[in-house]
Formats: sequence, C-alpha cells, structure tokens
Amino acid sequence: MAILDGKLISNIIKNEIAEEVQLIKLKNGKTPCLAAILVGNDGASETYVASKVKSCEEVGFQSELIRMPSDTTEAELLFEITKLNNDPKIDGFIVQLPLPKHINEQNIIQSISIEKDVDGFHPTNMGKLVQGLPSFIPATPFGIIQLLERYKIETEGKNCVVLGRSNIVGTPMAILMSRKGYPGNCTVTICHSKSKNLETHLLQADIIIAALGIPEFLKGNMVKAGAVVIDVGITRVKDEQSKKGFVLKGDVKFDEVAPKCSFISPVPGGVGLMTVTSLLMNTLKAAKNK
Amino acid sequence: MAILDGKLISNIIKNEIAEEVQLIKLKNGKTPCLAAILVGNDGASETYVASKVKSCEEVGFQSELIRMPSDTTEAELLFEITKLNNDPKIDGFIVQLPLPKHINEQNIIQSISIEKDVDGFHPTNMGKLVQGLPSFIPATPFGIIQLLERYKIETEGKNCVVLGRSNIVGTPMAILMSRKGYPGNCTVTICHSKSKNLETHLLQADIIIAALGIPEFLKGNMVKAGAVVIDVGITRVKDEQSKKGFVLKGDVKFDEVAPKCSFISPVPGGVGLMTVTSLLMNTLKAAKNK
Repeated sequence: MAILDGKLISNIIKNEIAEEVQLIKLKNGKTPCLAAILVGNDGASETYVASKVKSCEEVGFQSELIRMPSDTTEAELLFEITKLNNDPKIDGFIVQLPLPKHINEQNIIQSISIEKDVDGFHPTNMGKLVQGLPSFIPATPFGIIQLLERYKIETEGKNCVVLGRSNIVGTPMAILMSRKGYPGNCTVTICHSKSKNLETHLLQADIIIAALGIPEFLKGNMVKAGAVVIDVGITRVKDEQSKKGFVLKGDVKFDEVAPKCSFISPVPGGVGLMTVTSLLMNTLKAAKNK
Repeated sequence: MAILDGKLISNIIKNEIAEEVQLIKLKNGKTPCLAAILVGNDGASETYVASKVKSCEEVGFQSELIRMPSDTTEAELLFEITKLNNDPKIDGFIVQLPLPKHINEQNIIQSISIEKDVDGFHPTNMGKLVQGLPSFIPATPFGIIQLLERYKIETEGKNCVVLGRSNIVGTPMAILMSRKGYPGNCTVTICHSKSKNLETHLLQADIIIAALGIPEFLKGNMVKAGAVVIDVGITRVKDEQSKKGFVLKGDVKFDEVAPKCSFISPVPGGVGLMTVTSLLMNTLKAAKNK
C-alpha cells in the first residue's frame, strides 16, 4: 500500500509554478494575480481564503483579498465583480462560497467572466469540460486528476466508482474519468444516496473516488484488494480530546481500507491540499491565456 | 415485452404542443417560430431539416429555412446567426450539423444566443444541464427522457448502463439519469470503446441506453431478463434487397434482445422520432420564456 501524498505533490507543483512565475516576470514584467472576495466572516471561509492567499505568496503570485460585510447587497457584490472582470491587473478571481442567504449564488457565479473564472463554477466552463473543450476544471476534480497523473495511476479500461453526484466534485469527476485521454478512459459508475447494492459496484471497482461527505462511510469490506482509493470527504467531527474540539474525518475508514489498497489518499494530507494548488494552476493558466 | 413507441408518444406530444400553440396565438397573437440554417446540400442533412420543417407545420409553428451555399465563409455564417439572434420574430434556431470542413463548428455553436439555442449544444446550456439549472436539453437525450416518463418507467435506484460517451447523447444522458428527480436517481455506468468486461456491467443493468453507433452491437446474451432497452443507434447499412439500397439498423439486435426485455424502443420508430419532437418542445419553451 502506498500513500497518494497530497502534500508532496502540492509542493512539487507549487515549485513548478514558482519557476514559471519567475520566467513570466522576467519576460513580461508581469506577476499573475488572484483576487478573492469574501462576504461576511464565516469561520471556515476565513480559513480557506487565508490558505489561498498564503499559497499565492508561496508561488510568487500577487493576491488581493476583498472583504465585504455580511449585509452586502447582491447589487453591491455584482458591482465589485464587474470591477474585477474589467481590471486588467487581475488574472483570475473567486467569490468564496457559501454566500449570505439574501444573495443568489447562481447570479453571482454567472456574472464572473469566463476567462477569469478560476474556480470553474460558471456553467460555460462546466459545459466546456463536458464537451472536452479547454476550460477551467473545478479545483477539487482538477486536484484529483493531478494526483492520479503524478503517481502514474493506470486508468484506461479500469472500473471507477464515483461516490457522490455533486455539481462541484462527483459529477465533473465522473465526466473526467470517463472521457478520452489520460487520466480517463475508465468505465465510470456514479453512485449516490439512491443507489442500491452499493457493495456490488464498489467490489468491482479498481478506482474509488469517495465524495459523499459522510465520515468513514467506506469500510474495509467494500473495497477489493489492490484498489486505488481517493478520499475527497473532509468533515469536522466533534472530539473533546482534540485541542480544536474536532478532528477532520474523510469518507474512508482509513485503518480498515488502507491495508487493502494499492494506493490511497489520506485525510488530511490528500485531496484537500491539492485543491488549493489546483486553484493556483488555474490562475497561472488564466495569466498565460492573456 | 412492450414497445416504447416513439411514433405514438411523438404524436401525443405534438398534439399537446399544437393545443398550446393555439392558446398562445389567441392570447398574444404570436406564433412560435423555429429557424434552421442549412449550409451546403448534404443528403442526410436535407432529410433531417425537411423533417424538422414539416414537424413545425404539423404543430402550427412558423418555420424559416435559410439555405446557404457550401462555400459560405465562417464570417458569412456568423453574420446570419447574429441576425437570427437579434430577430425578435425567431424564438429558436438551429444550425444543421455537420458543417463544411472550412467552418469551425465550435465557433458557430458558441455564437448562438443561449436563449435561442434549442439544440442545447452551447457549452452554457450543457453546463446548466450538469448543474441542474433550467436549460435546453439536447434533443436526443430529451426525447429519451420523454419516452421513459410517458411510459412511467421506474428509474430510482435502478442500474442504468449508458453505452457511449458522446457530447450530444452518451454524456448528457448519463448526467440526466444520475441526477435527482424523475426520470433519474439511477446508478449510472458509462461504458465506451475502452471498457472491459462490458457483459458484466450490461448483465447488471435494469436500463440500457445504447448509443454507440455500431449496428446490432447489443446481443441477447448481454441483457438480463426484464431490462428496459433504449436503442439510440441509427446507422444506414447497405442492403441490395431494399429500394433505397440501405436499411436503418439500431445498436440493438432486436430479435434476440426484445424477447428478454420488459420494454424496448425499436429502430426505426423509437428514439429518432422523439428527437424532432424534442426540438419542437424546446422551441415552445423558448417562445414561452420570452
């Protein structure tokens, strides 16, 4: 059993990005720039955005954090987005989700310029992904693809089960794993809360991508020997023993599943770290597209 | 075994549309209008477009056929599209594919206004479909959904195998069958030319949607008793006995498969007829959206 080490691969990719940034600076005198809009002060969102800003610094990007109060109106947020869409200094930007309930998230997502939509949540980018056209792949699926690629995991003709059908992970992941090319060419089965006989599907799987958001859902008896298991889940579970009062749990019961796997991504230290790195990759791509 | 009768369901839906058209005319004095652009004079394309125009007449739509010579430039075609995008009389329009090779199909598809893209091929409409947002569903998948719905085929928790991963049938079909709602909530497996152990997957399937384009690919021994089989294939196979010199063959070896099925769609008389009807449904929707 080998670990798909998200920290290791993230660092390798970040180093590659940092080198490219140096070259771009030398050549064009420009520095890629990612902006993030944070509305309100949700604890988890603060943490995510802070980690994104920190990662930008690590690779030599410029970053811009735009904080807006929680009573920001949709019109005010749209105005801010228009400014970023038109600002030539900004290569890509994200609006940290979730937004306060009085703001329509879809209106916001669809107002972001497709060329700067480095989260890849705009329907046009999602549609291009489906159609195999150049697009920004949402960060989590893109991170998983990178992990598979860097560890040279064979995918062609393999049975891949995707657990979960969310818009930002399960569904795009199923499309990516089934499409032509590498990683891809898998026979993909999409399972979800309405699936029956889950075990039957899982025990046929060479690759399992668990993105249900149910802590320790995938047990040892659901996985065949030699499988590759990618754990996308990351749930805070109460733990009074821990300083923070919680521990992070993946969708995979690691101690049971890991011994059966050829490769497995841990939580933490797996897909989560790759997600931020993918955002940097998308931003670099946006900068180069210009 | 019962037939999923595309002709019957098409006629029912067309009658419903015709009634709605009468109401819209009475209420707003307007008639829904579909335009089609046909570049060059490919035989099959002529047939398809003629059938679309005829169907428009049947339900009381206005239709407009714009013929352009095969040496039309991309710029000339884009100019024509801009006119249709801006013409308030036109509710929806299609550009018949394939286009002559000197024209970039993607440029053309992406130039069509999303609100008039009744073929549902624009990436934005595809992305909205993936994200469960209101959109125009491409005609063939939409037609299959209608067939399943009108025959009240149970789908929740069923195993559905989609054979084929094309942008316009296989992939959107897999997304539709796996999404929440009815028809949907299936455990969907996407199989394709790189899949191994196809039989294993097929023999577990409660619903098979065959969209490979390989005549009579699906044999009797690949289908479990009681399965629902949808045949999307429609290939011209040489036949000297036939007046036209060819016969139309589906992806399913009908005589072997049909006796094992609970429901099966024939070729011809199944999905093909539903496709044109779906285009009418999309056009009516476009007219009502305005």
